[in-house]
Amino acid sequence: MSFVVERTCGRARAGRLTTAHGDVPTPIFMPVGTYGTVKAMTPRELETAGARIILGNTYHLWLRPGLDVVAAHGGLHRMMGWAHPILTDSGGFQVFSLQTLSKLTDEGVTFRSPIDGSPRMLTPEVSMQIQKTLGADVVMAFDHCPPGDAPRAAVEEAMARTTRWAARCLAEPLAPGQLRFGIVQGAAHVDLRLAHIDQICALPFDGFALGGFSVGEPVATMHRVLDEVADRLPRERARYLMGVGTPDDLLHAIEAGVDMFDCVMPTRNARNGQLFTSRGRVVIKHARHREDVGPVDDACECETCRCFTRAYLRHLHACGEILFSRLATLHNLTYYLNLVAGARRAIFEGRYAEYAAGVRATWNRDEEDATCT
Amino acid sequence: MSFVVERTCGRARAGRLTTAHGDVPTPIFMPVGTYGTVKAMTPRELETAGARIILGNTYHLWLRPGLDVVAAHGGLHRMMGWAHPILTDSGGFQVFSLQTLSKLTDEGVTFRSPIDGSPRMLTPEVSMQIQKTLGADVVMAFDHCPPGDAPRAAVEEAMARTTRWAARCLAEPLAPGQLRFGIVQGAAHVDLRLAHIDQICALPFDGFALGGFSVGEPVATMHRVLDEVADRLPRERARYLMGVGTPDDLLHAIEAGVDMFDCVMPTRNARNGQLFTSRGRVVIKHARHREDVGPVDDACECETCRCFTRAYLRHLHACGEILFSRLATLHNLTYYLNLVAGARRAIFEGRYAEYAAGVRATWNRDEEDATCT
Repeated sequence: MSFVVERTCGRARAGRLTTAHGDVPTPIFMPVGTYGTVKAMTPRELETAGARIILGNTYHLWLRPGLDVVAAHGGLHRMMGWAHPILTDSGGFQVFSLQTLSKLTDEGVTFRSPIDGSPRMLTPEVSMQIQKTLGADVVMAFDHCPPGDAPRAAVEEAMARTTRWAARCLAEPLAPGQLRFGIVQGAAHVDLRLAHIDQICALPFDGFALGGFSVGEPVATMHRVLDEVADRLPRERARYLMGVGTPDDLLHAIEAGVDMFDCVMPTRNARNGQLFTSRGRVVIKHARHREDVGPVDDACECETCRCFTRAYLRHLHACGEILFSRLATLHNLTYYLNLVAGARRAIFEGRYAEYAAGVRATWNRDEEDATCT
Repeated sequence: MSFVVERTCGRARAGRLTTAHGDVPTPIFMPVGTYGTVKAMTPRELETAGARIILGNTYHLWLRPGLDVVAAHGGLHRMMGWAHPILTDSGGFQVFSLQTLSKLTDEGVTFRSPIDGSPRMLTPEVSMQIQKTLGADVVMAFDHCPPGDAPRAAVEEAMARTTRWAARCLAEPLAPGQLRFGIVQGAAHVDLRLAHIDQICALPFDGFALGGFSVGEPVATMHRVLDEVADRLPRERARYLMGVGTPDDLLHAIEAGVDMFDCVMPTRNARNGQLFTSRGRVVIKHARHREDVGPVDDACECETCRCFTRAYLRHLHACGEILFSRLATLHNLTYYLNLVAGARRAIFEGRYAEYAAGVRATWNRDEEDATCT
């Protein structure tokens, strides 16, 4: 078995995903390494921040550097110097985002590379072949993710196509040890989600993902639907909520029974100067940090918080220095990875709801308000 | 004494500069940390690359983050987390580069801050006060550096002003332990250089610098003038060639008797994709590196060369990834710091000329030519 549930607390689960490059304790957050690098980080720093598995983007790596370059290294792990598990997406989400540039048929999606204009066709089979070459530990099925505002009929059509494509994905051989996850669509329609779970989870995937969330629907809607559907995914398989989300989203989804997450939020927000702390949000450019020689978060043990001040970080940010992106990214990833590690401990200790309430109370408040109360 | 010559080989010297934050073996190269960060590097990485002293820019730090912020940290060392020696320039070179924005009198230079438009006046006294607040281990005198194409009369005027300003710099109190270096001008005129050495080196500075080189004159001219003047600086004081230069420039200047160097070349070229190696120049974007899974330099032990391939670096560069700037900077600084460390060893072993000839033969050739022969 590639996944075992080690402990539950309500619907929240602590588990372990076993892959060809090692085990992953869950709940887990996967930093996003689009082009074979989690932006601004070295693999060693990711380890230090607590990363156990990262995400690579099939679409981006296919176009740059191209599969021949990845293959010359013997796969993505060796190309980027990351010895731990990697999950790759299918490329579907990206090609559907191209909208006018792409053409959808039941065979797959044709589009022109925005890098060099070359014509490309992504199909379930091609996506599997690319992810096989990348050497992903977890390969995602090629699905059809409709826009967030798609009418119900379009959602149903995308579900049906995703189911047909799922079977084609399963028919395509992977390398020994590669796991394959199916993807459930259905937008914010609970009945459609449950119907699609019945279809996709009847197939012999190693794990299951919820796609098509956080694509424009209200946050409360996503949370409500997750409450209704996440725990209906097979109990004995890993459950992955794709592309989500804020700390609150993670806490809510873990409570609903989700095990795995990825999102650009910690890394992108970091580069934009927004830091997550145990005392609330820190917007580093604010004037109140100008001479603040304290750490970003005195409860954090990352190198950024141990070695550098808010005033220095604010200065680096104002000057557009690369070191700012580095230090901010390291900190935000540490925050996210501590968050899921804390959730896991809390599940083992039977106090998940209490843990989630504590983090929820702090993560998004303005730190200055907190100081005043 | 703040400086001792430990060994000579011809005019080349191996020495030791003693500062409040530790000793610096010479010859040494100082990475440039303009805004309180050597671009893309952490202090720990600088240590790993072999840096023993870095340079900070008075002009830049005065304007951003401002002296109050540096003072809140107790100085530049603590603000940037660098526990080893720091040399700061005087700010003169920058304000003179502003040209039309600045107005020169014998009192000093008035200009408007390009950051916020505020009126500023930099004088010998102000420069000393800023560098005192920064907490530099080595404080540079405020000098007048004329443009590279200045007529002889203008050079003479700048020399005379630099001499008057030198006396004012010496009259300004510094903190205990801060060393103060005088600066010799004279452009490419050997007779003027020698005359200015007589003036400046008669003053009680702790070390002496050659300013006004590499400001547009031909490289051969700089080398010829250095041959004539560098060894006329006091033997018992450190000799610093400001803002220079290429590996060949360093080797030539060391041969002429210079001890210390700074230049943005290794860091700036790194970010632009130009790498120094033991086999020649590597321009990482070249197609021939596309599937090259070898290291940048198989003779280099930096993390970049130990952990990552040329093909991966080329990919990161093409994608504009921050990690490229990091890995390239780490490598180029390692190259420069290995170069001066190798020069020091060669001086101790009495084979400096041989060492310099070996490095000169490789540093600037096209690596592909080397491969073909």
